[in-house]
Amino acid sequence: LSVTHTSTAEFVPFGDTIASARRGPRRTVAVVWPHDLESLRGALDARTQFGVEPLLVGQPAAILALLDQLRVGEDRPRIVPAASDVEAASSAVALVHAGEADILMKGHLHSDDFLRPILHKERGLRLNRLMSHVFACAVPPSTYHKTLYITDAAFNVAPDLAAKRSILQNAIDFVHLLGCERPKVAILAAVESVNPAMPATVDAAALTAMARRGQITGGVVDGPLAFDNAVSLRCAQGKGIDSPVAGDPDIMLVPTIEVGNIMYKQLVHFCGAIAPGIVLGARAPVLLTSRSEPAAARTAALAIAAVIAGANR
Amino acid sequence: LSVTHTSTAEFVPFGDTIASARRGPRRTVAVVWPHDLESLRGALDARTQFGVEPLLVGQPAAILALLDQLRVGEDRPRIVPAASDVEAASSAVALVHAGEADILMKGHLHSDDFLRPILHKERGLRLNRLMSHVFACAVPPSTYHKTLYITDAAFNVAPDLAAKRSILQNAIDFVHLLGCERPKVAILAAVESVNPAMPATVDAAALTAMARRGQITGGVVDGPLAFDNAVSLRCAQGKGIDSPVAGDPDIMLVPTIEVGNIMYKQLVHFCGAIAPGIVLGARAPVLLTSRSEPAAARTAALAIAAVIAGANR
Repeated sequence: LSVTHTSTAEFVPFGDTIASARRGPRRTVAVVWPHDLESLRGALDARTQFGVEPLLVGQPAAILALLDQLRVGEDRPRIVPAASDVEAASSAVALVHAGEADILMKGHLHSDDFLRPILHKERGLRLNRLMSHVFACAVPPSTYHKTLYITDAAFNVAPDLAAKRSILQNAIDFVHLLGCERPKVAILAAVESVNPAMPATVDAAALTAMARRGQITGGVVDGPLAFDNAVSLRCAQGKGIDSPVAGDPDIMLVPTIEVGNIMYKQLVHFCGAIAPGIVLGARAPVLLTSRSEPAAARTAALAIAAVIAGANR
Repeated sequence: LSVTHTSTAEFVPFGDTIASARRGPRRTVAVVWPHDLESLRGALDARTQFGVEPLLVGQPAAILALLDQLRVGEDRPRIVPAASDVEAASSAVALVHAGEADILMKGHLHSDDFLRPILHKERGLRLNRLMSHVFACAVPPSTYHKTLYITDAAFNVAPDLAAKRSILQNAIDFVHLLGCERPKVAILAAVESVNPAMPATVDAAALTAMARRGQITGGVVDGPLAFDNAVSLRCAQGKGIDSPVAGDPDIMLVPTIEVGNIMYKQLVHFCGAIAPGIVLGARAPVLLTSRSEPAAARTAALAIAAVIAGANR
């Protein structure tokens, strides 16, 4: 009810997604080793705002002490005891398999320890597809007119063409679940022409052809595009580029982790973006929160995860 | 005189550089094939603002018609006749060798045609060092507190460690000429720890060690740094990173052309940056202007080139 008076001029990051999460089925998030205030705050905010139920997997005494600091009294979330961060990660995966958790969120532990049981070949949460990462970057309207989805900026380091195809399909399927029915996808490179000396441009051309042949479905895909041609129709037209994506992309597929990671961090630090990230392609949405992540991004990540949870079960 | 009342709160891109160009020796720029209004405007603005003298290398009749359109009357720049764009590029290089031109600027022709005679092994403008590119990105103070130099975002596609060393040294020597005496350099990667699976982090560590051993001189170099640790001291401290560069880099060395190109275009299109580019390491500064480049960036590029011209003769 508090988001009914939004206008396009206001910057209300993920207001629609939070509203969808509130309307949707009640989801449970296993927070792995929530042994710091930030991890707990994000999960508790999500419970208050849109009813995602936290399951806190860690040492009960330590967690209770933190909950006291946050003045959470009678309505404490359930705690699933775990003796170590590594054990907490394994337990959380088991909770997903048991149907008790719909979403996994990293708390105060190393990403490697968090991911190891998720990636385990038999007992993990892998499906028959590549896992990949998307940052959903909500930016002020003065920066760009809609949310920009950047992939893969955190999980696959230097994907080959086959991996890029999977990363792109994961991202398209993902934004469909968020209500973006026919996303426009810009395959980014340094230039907009195919240059044999720049493998990113060759892969971009191949991905565009794949989309035309039905090997990638559900979006309007074009590349290679340089960043200026991608975001500015005027720039594209000035260069004589006829692209159904130019000026209006929803998704940007980047050639390497460095490109995407630096892009999204520049959006956050220089443009005021809120950029929740999510790992796709697993049995449950996986949230790789980082220590420096603001509460708004953590909460938004949980809202996104709540909306898409259940799609891969 | 018109730049005396600048304060740090105003955004006057390259005001100091333009003032230096005005005070310095009179320079001549050979504009190669200036067969469009934009190419001429940049050069004419530079003449008016800080006295760089254009030499227009192209077809006299076509150039005169354009000058008429711009209402340039008696005080026309000198025209050096050339029958084709390819011939114009060669003639401009010869003008540098003859001491008649101090700066080369691309007009309305393909970059490859412009660069071929510059890169020629015997008759070109190569020195005994790698040529590389820097974008000088002047951003509003609300974005970042000083000019950010990004290298290499336009010339070297996927430099190896030896090339990165040269690119970095070129950039440090360059900013010295602009009055930045001991630049801080962030070697960017996706993460701030050395990860054997991410070659950009390994190269960053090697470059940092090179600087410590005197193999790179004149700057304070640190990496690998992720973008957030590089630009935000708070982020760096939050991760326990002790870096003399964090929060205050002048130069950012990027691992590939895609990273730098997308970074600088994001600064231009999303942050309002003015980002003149310049090719370093040749006998004369070389300006690779692009069609979509605004006049302010072309003029600033000429001011920078005027200030550094003569350093490599």
